[in-house]
Amino acid sequence: MSIDRTKIQWNGWGWAAHQDDLAGNEALWTWLAGELGMPALLATPARPLESIALPPVRLSADARERFTALLGADRVRDDAYERAFHALGRSYHDVLRMRAGDLSTAPDAVLYPRSGDEVLGVLAAAAELGIAVVPYGGGTSVVGAVTASAGPFKSAITVDLSGMDRIVEIDPVSRTATVEAGIHGPALEKALGARGFTLGHFPQSFEFSTVGGWIAHRGAGQGSHGYGRAQDWLAAAKLATPRGVLGAGGFPGSSAGPQLLDLVLGSEGVFGIVTEATLRIVPVPAVSDYRGYLFRDFASGAAAIREAAQAGVAATMLRLSDAAETRFYRAYGAVGKRRGLRDRLADLVLSQRGFDDKACALIAGFEGEADGVTRARAAFDAIARRHKAMALGEGQGRRWKAGRFHGPYLRDPMMDRGVGVDTLETATSWSKLNDLYVAVQSALTGAIQGSAPREGARGVVQCHISHAYPDGASLYFTYIFPRALEREIEQWRAIKTAASDAIAANGGTISHHHGVGEDHLPWIAHEKGALGIDVLRAVKMALDPKGVMNPGKLIPPV
Amino acid sequence: MSIDRTKIQWNGWGWAAHQDDLAGNEALWTWLAGELGMPALLATPARPLESIALPPVRLSADARERFTALLGADRVRDDAYERAFHALGRSYHDVLRMRAGDLSTAPDAVLYPRSGDEVLGVLAAAAELGIAVVPYGGGTSVVGAVTASAGPFKSAITVDLSGMDRIVEIDPVSRTATVEAGIHGPALEKALGARGFTLGHFPQSFEFSTVGGWIAHRGAGQGSHGYGRAQDWLAAAKLATPRGVLGAGGFPGSSAGPQLLDLVLGSEGVFGIVTEATLRIVPVPAVSDYRGYLFRDFASGAAAIREAAQAGVAATMLRLSDAAETRFYRAYGAVGKRRGLRDRLADLVLSQRGFDDKACALIAGFEGEADGVTRARAAFDAIARRHKAMALGEGQGRRWKAGRFHGPYLRDPMMDRGVGVDTLETATSWSKLNDLYVAVQSALTGAIQGSAPREGARGVVQCHISHAYPDGASLYFTYIFPRALEREIEQWRAIKTAASDAIAANGGTISHHHGVGEDHLPWIAHEKGALGIDVLRAVKMALDPKGVMNPGKLIPPV
Repeated sequence: MSIDRTKIQWNGWGWAAHQDDLAGNEALWTWLAGELGMPALLATPARPLESIALPPVRLSADARERFTALLGADRVRDDAYERAFHALGRSYHDVLRMRAGDLSTAPDAVLYPRSGDEVLGVLAAAAELGIAVVPYGGGTSVVGAVTASAGPFKSAITVDLSGMDRIVEIDPVSRTATVEAGIHGPALEKALGARGFTLGHFPQSFEFSTVGGWIAHRGAGQGSHGYGRAQDWLAAAKLATPRGVLGAGGFPGSSAGPQLLDLVLGSEGVFGIVTEATLRIVPVPAVSDYRGYLFRDFASGAAAIREAAQAGVAATMLRLSDAAETRFYRAYGAVGKRRGLRDRLADLVLSQRGFDDKACALIAGFEGEADGVTRARAAFDAIARRHKAMALGEGQGRRWKAGRFHGPYLRDPMMDRGVGVDTLETATSWSKLNDLYVAVQSALTGAIQGSAPREGARGVVQCHISHAYPDGASLYFTYIFPRALEREIEQWRAIKTAASDAIAANGGTISHHHGVGEDHLPWIAHEKGALGIDVLRAVKMALDPKGVMNPGKLIPPV
Repeated sequence: MSIDRTKIQWNGWGWAAHQDDLAGNEALWTWLAGELGMPALLATPARPLESIALPPVRLSADARERFTALLGADRVRDDAYERAFHALGRSYHDVLRMRAGDLSTAPDAVLYPRSGDEVLGVLAAAAELGIAVVPYGGGTSVVGAVTASAGPFKSAITVDLSGMDRIVEIDPVSRTATVEAGIHGPALEKALGARGFTLGHFPQSFEFSTVGGWIAHRGAGQGSHGYGRAQDWLAAAKLATPRGVLGAGGFPGSSAGPQLLDLVLGSEGVFGIVTEATLRIVPVPAVSDYRGYLFRDFASGAAAIREAAQAGVAATMLRLSDAAETRFYRAYGAVGKRRGLRDRLADLVLSQRGFDDKACALIAGFEGEADGVTRARAAFDAIARRHKAMALGEGQGRRWKAGRFHGPYLRDPMMDRGVGVDTLETATSWSKLNDLYVAVQSALTGAIQGSAPREGARGVVQCHISHAYPDGASLYFTYIFPRALEREIEQWRAIKTAASDAIAANGGTISHHHGVGEDHLPWIAHEKGALGIDVLRAVKMALDPKGVMNPGKLIPPV
């Protein structure tokens, strides 16, 4: 069931065969140029792989032989496609580099182990030989967590887990599934679904990301409000390290000291490689009900989500777009379409009911048994009504759900037209949320303007509350901007730095569900404190004394 | 609001003024002797403090002066009462030693800091001078976690946090409360209640234990099914260490690497002292409904709890006694009372409905808004009915709730009559639960018989499921046995070892909510693995390089 790497874009998002009607929609590009304050959007194609020179393979013949002896020749790969495919993750920053032909971080070999023992053997050999090891699940990191950097070493190998995708055991009594960590989202859900279960973890990267990756970056799926985040559904894990296997978890509750499973979660490959995981699973929901609401403004929508989260309303997802995101998607969807009587009537109704350009769309999802879904929906309806929201019905919800994994596919056609699109996310307590929202929004807007390719050019900065908790919520920003073609990396860094500084200064976490990787490294010491970084370094030293595991990620160099 | 230490039993449980009618109930002692296979239960009084010689104070004058300069003379105590009070925790093992006059672990001084900075100063001085530091909240540990051992050092001080009991801030919007860690349960609930909130953390030690202790041992209250365990309600903490403050947490959700708050939880004072904590709070429940059920056997009761936990029935507590516990409490309550017509009728009804000596009592608690309570109770009722249980009504629930903190008070009168009573607890997945139950029960029964003071003497071994999760549950064993008066410590150790070995061999955690301390230390390496212990040692080295923090607890010596 593992994914054929040659069928995925090596330098962009998703299936190579994916066709998007965006590219040929000139009306849309004209409209977008206007939104970005640009006279036009020019073609900026990516460099084809054939035209790009990869760095020479630095792995010694002895090392290569050692790995070949462990895995066999067909599972130690160093052809150009494999090396290019595994050079970087799939962040905007990564895609910029790949499209420009910068494959300086291509690994010297890509290894495909098929068992935990094989992984252990590879890690022990790499530690002995002083070769950096970059763990790779689906490679969909958007924070530079799979960049195949050699760090202080002479060479780097990527260990691709996609060959380890077996279901080890499903225990329907305890409702757990033990699986190999390289299994992809769709294969996992197919196997669980055949037994009547689901994990319910659906990140936007679901099609391509793996269980091991979800654990290693402490992920949260779109439905984590109902199904929980990685730390909620992970019951046990095996972490292969250069010093052997760290087995952690396995109890429903324990007070036997700090739980080491919590160190596996979010470890981003710097301590070892997750090879096997036991997941808490739940029955496939009988009913799935997603629907839209329109709130008068961001504050009233946020208050409704807060009330629902604090009252324990059993929603699967509550996702509130701010006014900018609401307006953008409405305008985007309308481009090139004739506005009929129905559209004009809808506008009239909205305006008569007092919804103006501050209006914010919310998608609420409810999954489970019919009774529970009905009750949760009614409870949220009542809260929404109290906040003078308008129910938009199931159509909006259906459309959101049908396109839930589609967002990342829009980036490549935009990149082909000189447009940059990036996202970042954070979280804080409810009482700090609005200040954080305003600060990051303003930082992004300012940094995009400050780094724009021409006078008058500007970005579109959107935000939604993506996940909510009784004590706070996450903010997910999407920003679209005209690329400064000759200094794109600097532009990316300027925007990223402004936003991240604003997050750090306003009590936000540097990541709610994307992770740290290389990109968030400059802010991690602020978040964890100097002593906290010492603790992470000490744990790494205990498990990876030679420091070969994923150098340059998560833990700042000394 | 802090508790006056002189009003608590120094060598037993609870308020010194507490009067129990158990002591004078000769009918009960005669009945209990019969249950334990003993001809009679003789008086075995504890040694009074005045008759016990404390070990000499080993603290140097210089060191004492140093601490006095930091805290003032009245907060550096070394009188006999303070030293005796803080020598040990409140486990059966501890109480055995205190009653016998073994105060060899009395600390050389007891310090009462009043701020995080004072704690930091004390820890830095202790590290510099090479003095062991034993953090002390309520001192109610039942696993030897506050034993004032000097370890490899020449002297030991106990740092009693009870002077740090302020409410720092209540944030009603984010529903969090920030408090100093030395605050006791009742004072915390009183302050929260005044603002309409509760933490909902009610361990049996609630009257005397502190927020810091709950965090340091990763506790679970009786109502954790509804209110969550420490790791669920802890939002942030400050840990004072010999190297400075480790601040952790503060975000509702974060994927910025491993969360260091998870290392504070369960750290048992070996990394530092929790000085401040931010807790997730909830509204005081409008309704509190506790009621009893009688199941035909343990298996059907366990299945009902499993179904409720997996269906997400919003219970606050589901607590199932096994047949032995059910029988014992029934017989215990009936001792010396005339059985009237009503009792005989009740027996008749039970027997006609097919309930025999395998019957198991369950207490179900539901707290919250009226609607939610009604719904949750109805859902559990339906599950119980399907399992052919009988509803016993609210009387049983009310009685349980009224006596929820009373259990530990029964130990002292029993100890006065040559009877030992101890408890232990574990947890595992649902599919392993029955095997674990049988194995531990059999180990306890055998070890009590094997270490009994005379031929034919035996124990009463009882168990209840105390906490349930979708993937498993905890087992809480209470065992009452005739003490082997000349070799009581060996007897305790033999029983503890047999049960703990059975837990380790059958996939249980060595503790579900009591912690590790000194008593579970021999089993922690089995549970965490050698590499896991290395990780804990590395974290300790990073925060407490001199090793002064609570030596001999949680982490096995190298």
